[in-house]
Amino acid sequence: MDTDKREWPVVGVDVGGTKIAAGVVDAAGRISGQVKLPTDTNQPEAVLESVERAVRASLDAAGLSISMVKGVGIGVPGVVDPEAGIGIEAANLGWHNVPVKTILEEKLGVSCFIENDVGAGALGESLYGAGRGFENMVYLSLGTGVAARAILGGHLYRGVHGLAGEIGHVSLGGGKQACRCGGQGCLEAYTAGPALSAQAREALEAGQSSLMTELCETTREIRAETVFEAADRGDRLAGEILAEAGRHLGQAILLLVASYDPQAVVLGGGLVQGREGLVKAIRAGMEEWSRQMPLFRPVLEIMPLLVSGLKNDGPVLGAAAIFNNREKNLSPVK
Amino acid sequence: MDTDKREWPVVGVDVGGTKIAAGVVDAAGRISGQVKLPTDTNQPEAVLESVERAVRASLDAAGLSISMVKGVGIGVPGVVDPEAGIGIEAANLGWHNVPVKTILEEKLGVSCFIENDVGAGALGESLYGAGRGFENMVYLSLGTGVAARAILGGHLYRGVHGLAGEIGHVSLGGGKQACRCGGQGCLEAYTAGPALSAQAREALEAGQSSLMTELCETTREIRAETVFEAADRGDRLAGEILAEAGRHLGQAILLLVASYDPQAVVLGGGLVQGREGLVKAIRAGMEEWSRQMPLFRPVLEIMPLLVSGLKNDGPVLGAAAIFNNREKNLSPVK
Repeated sequence: MDTDKREWPVVGVDVGGTKIAAGVVDAAGRISGQVKLPTDTNQPEAVLESVERAVRASLDAAGLSISMVKGVGIGVPGVVDPEAGIGIEAANLGWHNVPVKTILEEKLGVSCFIENDVGAGALGESLYGAGRGFENMVYLSLGTGVAARAILGGHLYRGVHGLAGEIGHVSLGGGKQACRCGGQGCLEAYTAGPALSAQAREALEAGQSSLMTELCETTREIRAETVFEAADRGDRLAGEILAEAGRHLGQAILLLVASYDPQAVVLGGGLVQGREGLVKAIRAGMEEWSRQMPLFRPVLEIMPLLVSGLKNDGPVLGAAAIFNNREKNLSPVK
Repeated sequence: MDTDKREWPVVGVDVGGTKIAAGVVDAAGRISGQVKLPTDTNQPEAVLESVERAVRASLDAAGLSISMVKGVGIGVPGVVDPEAGIGIEAANLGWHNVPVKTILEEKLGVSCFIENDVGAGALGESLYGAGRGFENMVYLSLGTGVAARAILGGHLYRGVHGLAGEIGHVSLGGGKQACRCGGQGCLEAYTAGPALSAQAREALEAGQSSLMTELCETTREIRAETVFEAADRGDRLAGEILAEAGRHLGQAILLLVASYDPQAVVLGGGLVQGREGLVKAIRAGMEEWSRQMPLFRPVLEIMPLLVSGLKNDGPVLGAAAIFNNREKNLSPVK
């Protein structure tokens, strides 16, 4: 990585369905002026106005003007064409072929670069996080959505249409659980945050007893957080929900290993931040599946399964890194 | 690809569990002196003697001496370390950490290079076959074994341990069918040639009626070929066996697409040579799974699923190509 050729500082922006995080990142990977603003998803244009507001608020907080930064890197959910700067599809944001780069460059008067948020996270993790030092690694993001991206030979591997790593919308076991993508039986439909809380709600409404009824007044209040807390306290139902998610994710990680044969796998996203329950369940799930798939056992024994240590800073660092790696990562095929 | 820098002619060798194919390949990808000799698998050394015999027989047939070729490229089954020139594991050949390169270079007095046979096949396909012109493609080999290898950015992607693409030994549906790798529920255990014939034998021995009983005197004689022939003639049992294999392989291809997001997928190996039955079943299987996974539908609609046109020459061309791409493909990580 030619660090000397990189341009700093850069504003990193992580665009989520409910909140936009932004911060100014310097050459050493330090963040200043962190802000978090609500995302206005009423219209695609409103999202971009929220992004502009977040960038300006971050610069204000860091005591910088827009002319003092080299550019803005933006991680957005969904399918992205970074070369054209277009957000092709993002259900969360109501985006369909939105020329994000052109509009933001007009608004801000500085160079902008967009990439899929998990891709940005993977690059950030490989440059600043748990994936540092691994030329080949897989980043698996577990939160409201589930997706992976691989760093191969030190660069983000996008694939031809930017879909490489979209394992969250693949059906493994052939189940029929409905997914928000419109599909059935997707990995995400069994393992994302909303899936965990939905499983808990269904079980409680079907009359199963659990500590979770004490943690929430009504089952509608149950969040993934509730499941984690109950599991930490030894609740059986919550433990079973995590164990089942761990089995699904363990199988998915074995599939990612069979595809990318990486040096390491890094777990990130809200479901593993400060929470050991799901990570333990994933390790157990991998152990269980690897008994069935002996070819991969020697590799799994030495391959580290790491948890992101970047926490909330990860997406902003990743988004800034993606701006500074824009030329190397632009190629659709490598 | 710096074709001008490549060295020709090269002997390409494909080492199988029963036969070794060899041929001399020139700069235009033409093969001369094709030979096919039996593999002596009594001992690891005997296999290497068979390889030497095949190389010398091929040179004789082409009217060349060993000093007139630049080297020998060898595709071997199993796990391979091309940098060290070691065959790490190959159940078929009884290999465990065999220093193939050193031994063959001593025997032949010319530079040798080994690679996994499916990796060699993938490179050959991308240079001379159906994959030509695609910088990013996936090659799925269907024969006695089932495995894939990806060409990314024009180079063979090996992964860190040479396992990238070993989807044949991954369990998708969670089934329990025993696999020759020692695992359970592997894709290969449902879809490889021996699996197709075993399914036919079991069904016939359980009393199901089929044209296959007319094609063979005893059920022990049933081969994958028998299943294909019966399916071609409209036999229901044979058709069902292929349809089920197509469903497994269709799911596997969707997983490969989700990982590599390639420009094209090329099918190769004995099960698709001159036989449309399995390819049709795979297309139907992909169609069925893609209904469940809408994220990939737009990509699958435009992504070609091709069948190798190299036929029997493929492995020899691939093995020769792997010799001439040895430096570029040596890196374990890219």
